[in-house]
Amino acid sequence: MSPTDQIGSATLRRNRRVYNRLPATLKPSLVNQLQGLSMSDYDVLCVGNAIVDIIARCEDDFLVANGIIKGAMNLIDAVRAEHLYDRMGPAIETSGGSAGNTAAGIASFGGRAAFFGKVAHDQLGRIYGHDIRAQGVAFDTAPLEFGAPTARSMIFVTPDGERSMNTYLGACVELGPQDVERDKAAGARVTYFEGYLWDPPRAKQAILKAAEIAHAADREVSFTLSDPFCVDRYRDEFLHLMRTGIVDIVFANEHELKSLYQTSSFEAALEQIRVDCRLAAVTRSERGSIIVRGGETVEVEAITVEDVVDTTGAGDLYAAGFLHGYTRGCDLKRCGDLGSLAAGLVIQQVGPRPRQNLRFEAEQAGLL
Amino acid sequence: MSPTDQIGSATLRRNRRVYNRLPATLKPSLVNQLQGLSMSDYDVLCVGNAIVDIIARCEDDFLVANGIIKGAMNLIDAVRAEHLYDRMGPAIETSGGSAGNTAAGIASFGGRAAFFGKVAHDQLGRIYGHDIRAQGVAFDTAPLEFGAPTARSMIFVTPDGERSMNTYLGACVELGPQDVERDKAAGARVTYFEGYLWDPPRAKQAILKAAEIAHAADREVSFTLSDPFCVDRYRDEFLHLMRTGIVDIVFANEHELKSLYQTSSFEAALEQIRVDCRLAAVTRSERGSIIVRGGETVEVEAITVEDVVDTTGAGDLYAAGFLHGYTRGCDLKRCGDLGSLAAGLVIQQVGPRPRQNLRFEAEQAGLL
Repeated sequence: MSPTDQIGSATLRRNRRVYNRLPATLKPSLVNQLQGLSMSDYDVLCVGNAIVDIIARCEDDFLVANGIIKGAMNLIDAVRAEHLYDRMGPAIETSGGSAGNTAAGIASFGGRAAFFGKVAHDQLGRIYGHDIRAQGVAFDTAPLEFGAPTARSMIFVTPDGERSMNTYLGACVELGPQDVERDKAAGARVTYFEGYLWDPPRAKQAILKAAEIAHAADREVSFTLSDPFCVDRYRDEFLHLMRTGIVDIVFANEHELKSLYQTSSFEAALEQIRVDCRLAAVTRSERGSIIVRGGETVEVEAITVEDVVDTTGAGDLYAAGFLHGYTRGCDLKRCGDLGSLAAGLVIQQVGPRPRQNLRFEAEQAGLL
Repeated sequence: MSPTDQIGSATLRRNRRVYNRLPATLKPSLVNQLQGLSMSDYDVLCVGNAIVDIIARCEDDFLVANGIIKGAMNLIDAVRAEHLYDRMGPAIETSGGSAGNTAAGIASFGGRAAFFGKVAHDQLGRIYGHDIRAQGVAFDTAPLEFGAPTARSMIFVTPDGERSMNTYLGACVELGPQDVERDKAAGARVTYFEGYLWDPPRAKQAILKAAEIAHAADREVSFTLSDPFCVDRYRDEFLHLMRTGIVDIVFANEHELKSLYQTSSFEAALEQIRVDCRLAAVTRSERGSIIVRGGETVEVEAITVEDVVDTTGAGDLYAAGFLHGYTRGCDLKRCGDLGSLAAGLVIQQVGPRPRQNLRFEAEQAGLL
């Protein structure tokens, strides 16, 4: 932990009550001021599809009747979006998107996060921008003025708490290299992106540009495999990212890892990813996570959860906790524990961004 | 209970599993088909401001610092809406509006509900229309094509669970007599509206028209006093509605009742409302409710609630339970118990419309 971190952390702890009363928009700049950092210094820059979630409960039969793959991210077009929305029950709306959720989680831990993602100039885009900025994340990507509306994902949550997503990408298809802010990509300790970004046409160019800037500034690059079907669509490209060193740190769950290496053996897949990237964290739901770095292997337990309400955001928040610990210089076990904590909290509520203050929760748990 | 009610109720009970799997849009017409009723027959027609709620938590200090009256509905203009939204934390969005919540509650009980309310032709308006129709409520008011956007209320929930609302009326100001659908006003057993409708300029004309149609068809008319400050703005007009018999049934909470009669004595106010309207139901938070009809007085207990999460919708859902029982021919005690049940459930969650199936909950509690 660097001296500036210690000063910032102690100051924030003492001043939490005052800080919490401040307008949300003042908070990020205050953090930077207290920590003596310029606006271009971030712990983590997250890049992803900027999506508003529309969440409703349903029975398993509904998924079958409507051809929705359970537990997956199903990409849909505008016509299917209309069709499914007509069949969806009363819903709630909340900002989501995988890497956006991770950015919000890092900010909730007290980390300095930035986000690149494309919304439209419409009401849902306004909501998205509000929520991520109000959480303290720097978000300055220009909204799309004309064309597709802000992306939305209709998320159906079954009685077992599993979420099945149906995503209409809307304005996200316009994210491209022009949206990479050089100072943020160079100034963030880790640039993190979602594998889902291989779905829109030009986002991968943005990622390659951001990764190049980051590495030139001696920073690290990380990504999540996102979804087993996403891995299936872009397996070779994802392996290329890892094997050529464009990516340093990989997040995956068990299903995504097996899909990547087209094997049913978790152990075999784990041995392969150990070779293919410098550091990998693999989540296994209630069985916790396993972190591998070269010859090193760290096993991390999940936290005890009595009632899984909605699994949306579990992987995103694991990455948030892990990366917050990582950019604070914690050892791998502590990084994994922070990930377990955030993931365990978010699955006990509806929606993908925990309503708790994660820094407070981590301090209560003795992790920060 | 009429024979058609019994047939409809038994059929629905037997077929609940099948029914729950149907697309939401099919449900209202199916209910009517099973019960052999035309589309113009409703238990309750609700009329109110069509509002999307934007809900976030805050500390009490935030209310003071921003001049928000705690527990009240604060009317705001577009400039103040921008100002408050900039200071609001990350939020969730959900359909709300007092009478709209009541309509949704009645439909959740299995009652046949219709709604009049004005949204704009925008994303929030689309969400509002979806949610209320997906709950099974008939909603056909033409959206506003040009002009103000869909109304929204920024709701700040303090740690005690109390909600403080900040409402920008937007498109609601255009609701007027042209929006009264004659067949629904004539065909609903009870036409129910919110006192809040005296805020927009022409909605009261719509109410007077709907009440006239309802009474001409030998139906009943009901309203809620909505809010102590709203009562203060329209005291004489509200008393006129009651004393001239334009309204038959009044809902109020203790604070609104005292405001109406400008007295600090609950007992004195209760005796006055007993004279001023045919039937009144007065809620008293955790002390339950008191129902008065002529010389008759019925006391109703609240249900036990361990943790008050968010009081938004409590009064609206009490009215839903009460009116569902009332239009099913239940005695006043049972009407009050159904109100207590629905209100008790909604305050244990974030948002104003219970996620439970209220008919199922009422059956479990032995009330239906």
